[in-house]
Amino acid sequence: MKLSKSFFYTLRENAKDEDSISSNLLVRSGMIKKTSNGIYMIMPMGKKVLSKIENIIREEMDAKEAQELLMPALIPEDVYIQSGRREAFGSNMFSLNDRYDKRYVLGPTHEELFTLAASMNGKSYKDFPYNLYQIQTKYRDETRPRYGLIRVREFIMKDAYSFDIDSNGLDESYVKMYDAYCRIFDRLRLNYKIVKADTGAMGGLLSEEYQAISQIGEDVVVGCQNCDFSSNLEITEVLDVMEDDPAQMLEKEVVYTPDAKTIEEVAAFFGKSTKDFVKTLVYSVDGKTYAFCIPGNRELNETKVLKALHANEMELASFEEVERVTHAKVGFAGPVGIDCPVYMDRQITHMKNFIVGANKSDHHMINVNCKDFEPVSILDLCQVQEGDICPKCHKKLIFDHGIEVGNLFKLGTKYSKTMNLYYTDQNNQLQPVWMGCYGIGLERCMAAVVEQHHDEAGIIWPEEIAPFKVAIVQISDKDENQCKVASEMYDYCISKGYDVLYDDRKERPGVKFKDMELIGIPYRFTVGRKASEGIVEFVSRYDNEKKEMTIPEALQFLDEKYK
Amino acid sequence: MKLSKSFFYTLRENAKDEDSISSNLLVRSGMIKKTSNGIYMIMPMGKKVLSKIENIIREEMDAKEAQELLMPALIPEDVYIQSGRREAFGSNMFSLNDRYDKRYVLGPTHEELFTLAASMNGKSYKDFPYNLYQIQTKYRDETRPRYGLIRVREFIMKDAYSFDIDSNGLDESYVKMYDAYCRIFDRLRLNYKIVKADTGAMGGLLSEEYQAISQIGEDVVVGCQNCDFSSNLEITEVLDVMEDDPAQMLEKEVVYTPDAKTIEEVAAFFGKSTKDFVKTLVYSVDGKTYAFCIPGNRELNETKVLKALHANEMELASFEEVERVTHAKVGFAGPVGIDCPVYMDRQITHMKNFIVGANKSDHHMINVNCKDFEPVSILDLCQVQEGDICPKCHKKLIFDHGIEVGNLFKLGTKYSKTMNLYYTDQNNQLQPVWMGCYGIGLERCMAAVVEQHHDEAGIIWPEEIAPFKVAIVQISDKDENQCKVASEMYDYCISKGYDVLYDDRKERPGVKFKDMELIGIPYRFTVGRKASEGIVEFVSRYDNEKKEMTIPEALQFLDEKYK
Repeated sequence: MKLSKSFFYTLRENAKDEDSISSNLLVRSGMIKKTSNGIYMIMPMGKKVLSKIENIIREEMDAKEAQELLMPALIPEDVYIQSGRREAFGSNMFSLNDRYDKRYVLGPTHEELFTLAASMNGKSYKDFPYNLYQIQTKYRDETRPRYGLIRVREFIMKDAYSFDIDSNGLDESYVKMYDAYCRIFDRLRLNYKIVKADTGAMGGLLSEEYQAISQIGEDVVVGCQNCDFSSNLEITEVLDVMEDDPAQMLEKEVVYTPDAKTIEEVAAFFGKSTKDFVKTLVYSVDGKTYAFCIPGNRELNETKVLKALHANEMELASFEEVERVTHAKVGFAGPVGIDCPVYMDRQITHMKNFIVGANKSDHHMINVNCKDFEPVSILDLCQVQEGDICPKCHKKLIFDHGIEVGNLFKLGTKYSKTMNLYYTDQNNQLQPVWMGCYGIGLERCMAAVVEQHHDEAGIIWPEEIAPFKVAIVQISDKDENQCKVASEMYDYCISKGYDVLYDDRKERPGVKFKDMELIGIPYRFTVGRKASEGIVEFVSRYDNEKKEMTIPEALQFLDEKYK
Repeated sequence: MKLSKSFFYTLRENAKDEDSISSNLLVRSGMIKKTSNGIYMIMPMGKKVLSKIENIIREEMDAKEAQELLMPALIPEDVYIQSGRREAFGSNMFSLNDRYDKRYVLGPTHEELFTLAASMNGKSYKDFPYNLYQIQTKYRDETRPRYGLIRVREFIMKDAYSFDIDSNGLDESYVKMYDAYCRIFDRLRLNYKIVKADTGAMGGLLSEEYQAISQIGEDVVVGCQNCDFSSNLEITEVLDVMEDDPAQMLEKEVVYTPDAKTIEEVAAFFGKSTKDFVKTLVYSVDGKTYAFCIPGNRELNETKVLKALHANEMELASFEEVERVTHAKVGFAGPVGIDCPVYMDRQITHMKNFIVGANKSDHHMINVNCKDFEPVSILDLCQVQEGDICPKCHKKLIFDHGIEVGNLFKLGTKYSKTMNLYYTDQNNQLQPVWMGCYGIGLERCMAAVVEQHHDEAGIIWPEEIAPFKVAIVQISDKDENQCKVASEMYDYCISKGYDVLYDDRKERPGVKFKDMELIGIPYRFTVGRKASEGIVEFVSRYDNEKKEMTIPEALQFLDEKYK
């Protein structure tokens, strides 16, 4: 592509409304442009990258004999009502009425339609297994879109679905996708970890996530300082390893604690630490009010709560509701005498004489023990913390941040049962089909690569997904020798079908070099003063080392890179 | 692809809810499946065809140095309000609120966003021309989706937009797209005509349509028995060639016409023909009521009306409104004394003593002449009819039906002015950018090809877009020789990267042949009894001629077809 005859731009200034390195660099390099909150145009330079990512994914899916199809995004709402997921998605799903007032949604994921598609195939056990996938646009009305392409409301996803006759078949199909994903993320040059995760709204038996390690990652990836344990923060168990407090149980007592509302203030008031507290958090879970008690130095893990209560949504209860169940101002909830069901974290069973809210304004209760209240259930409710004990080897856990670029789910028979996908087995009996589903977010991959591959000058694309592998930069548009050498090199590439960038603009060399660095072209040939001697300068974006090459050497390099 | 290990199905029965040959064949051959009114899944076999169509389009666009990008479908409604098109699209545009009640629409076409994208590029005259395109999903809430993939509500469109500094530049960019489109539709093996068309809601200076000729085409393509004139029905002029009626003007008279309401009944009552009538049609145009007078044997052309009135939408006025302006029952409207503005077709100026409704229940007015009423305007309002005079050579017009598979628009400066896209010319003056836009509907192309290329047995895909160019059909899955020959041929293809279909299913030969014919595979090798002698049978779907080939001959044929 000749830059002088193309649509091309870069921005000198940092993007004002972007909150991550990748989004800033992608906007500045003219790869993307925001159109509204969490929605972007993929501009020509960015589309080249995105198409290359798409091709890598398609190649690896096809290599596993998955078959590509294409689903609509506009789906009758009924379809999600039938599967029971309409509520689970809630307001994360865009919905609309058509001109005849029929309800539609914009598909956030396509288990339902793939199950319908699968029902067209033969229904004998002999007709399995198979794997269907698409690379298609998804819609999710995120509460808080952010980090550029990382959390958006419209994005391209590769979603694949496997169909097997039993759990062993599903295991095999799952492993194929596991392998394909490793190849895909390796080819994208991502530094990633594979972690076990919550199955969430998808339902199912097992879920693993591919987490690209990054400071801006919204997921905490839990690892171990010693073994290969890795897991998503949401599902990592807090081991029940606390020792029983040997103290004598004292009698509980309500104490007036004026001006002490935060846990730190109350601790100061009593001369105790937050460890001696039990926090009581009042939540509305699927519309009902519950209290959750956890040690004062811990955080509640909402995923564990939702799972334990088989619930879809939870949020802190309203002030009115807290006041109703505690009969007190907000800030004084405690498990003793509260007017709603109480769930207790299992670590509390080892604590004695702890401090809680008294369900009375400006009062706390001290010397509380488990015998003083009746939780409906005692279980693991807490978020794991860095330094906690590894569930596998009992050494210490360490935390990383990750961007979820892909995931694998063993769905089992959840969707085949609700969507009525059965087959006839060898004994002529109807059996539900076993399904798996496998997703990759394409724009998110693109952003994750930039988060991991950049420097102060701009993006450093891995070769395989760079918009152009090679740029030819001509220093002066007036020097005859330079014109001759540069256009000979370019014509050579055109004749061979090599897609190189030829910067033939009337711009200062500094501007051209800066642009090529910003947009992350891996290799650059500079055609400058020594063109008259048949010498060009070569520089690699990966190590910044410069060397001189003769024209034949340069052409040989091009041949190698474009094979 | 080995059929025994793939997702594959065909349907024996005709589709019950499909109203065209192409949709029936595409559904039966397992290429598409309806999910809701006007919305389809593209199944794996169909996706292969669609991807090939996409690649042809991309190749031809890239050959003209158009640059690909990707726009979102979810667009703030404001964008269309700014361009003034929100109203023009009306309820054809899907609209929705996001979780924060911000209004969005699903893009039916992307002039606005491309104008915004273009504004990122340099703004000097030196930075032009360029052409940007995308292959992306569009949404239109059609009143009456029909004919399978031909009129749908969600579909993939290639839309390109050219940006030039002046009208000459636009002309050049337009010609490039014109050429690219001819190449695309030639490669798709479509029989098409290029016709001038109305610029409609798009605005602009010139529009041409690529019409694939087909009985089910919803557009009438007007041609000439003599010259190369071709035009869309909507914009073809009805020449003002009627001769003045030499009769004496008589005095108008109101006549009681009981039980005669239709034009034919009134004609019988008076012993006259429909030619002696002037029909008066009462319409609501953008909410205001108008009467349109045309000769009794003609039809009103709504496109001409909308254009004349600079209006967006029109529909027959309600019964109540007709009664209000005529002071009579519906069916007796006439131009004399009607309570709304009257537009008159220019042919009426040549008529004398015609019959009209009397604006009085059960009465008509005879011997009416143009002097008896005052139209606000006299112009060409009628639909052209087959046999009318060719505007170019004055011989007779002939009609064809066409499916609009592509269109070209010279937009001029309409969008650059409303969306504020200006450049600085050589004199440092701001000038609006000249734009063109160019669309192709991908699924519609697929359907049009099937409408033109099929027989009783099924689809006959052109080579370049067939899901597979070649099928290898093995007659018996137990015969050792057949297994050996067929799998050797298949393995050869795999090793060479040829994408062939290998029908190795345990099915009767008749079933296999029928399936291959239905899904339209161009060439078939049958590996049967003579496999032991190294002989296979070859048949072409295009001429159904069979011949025997040796294995080396078969492999050579494969080499040629897959190059």
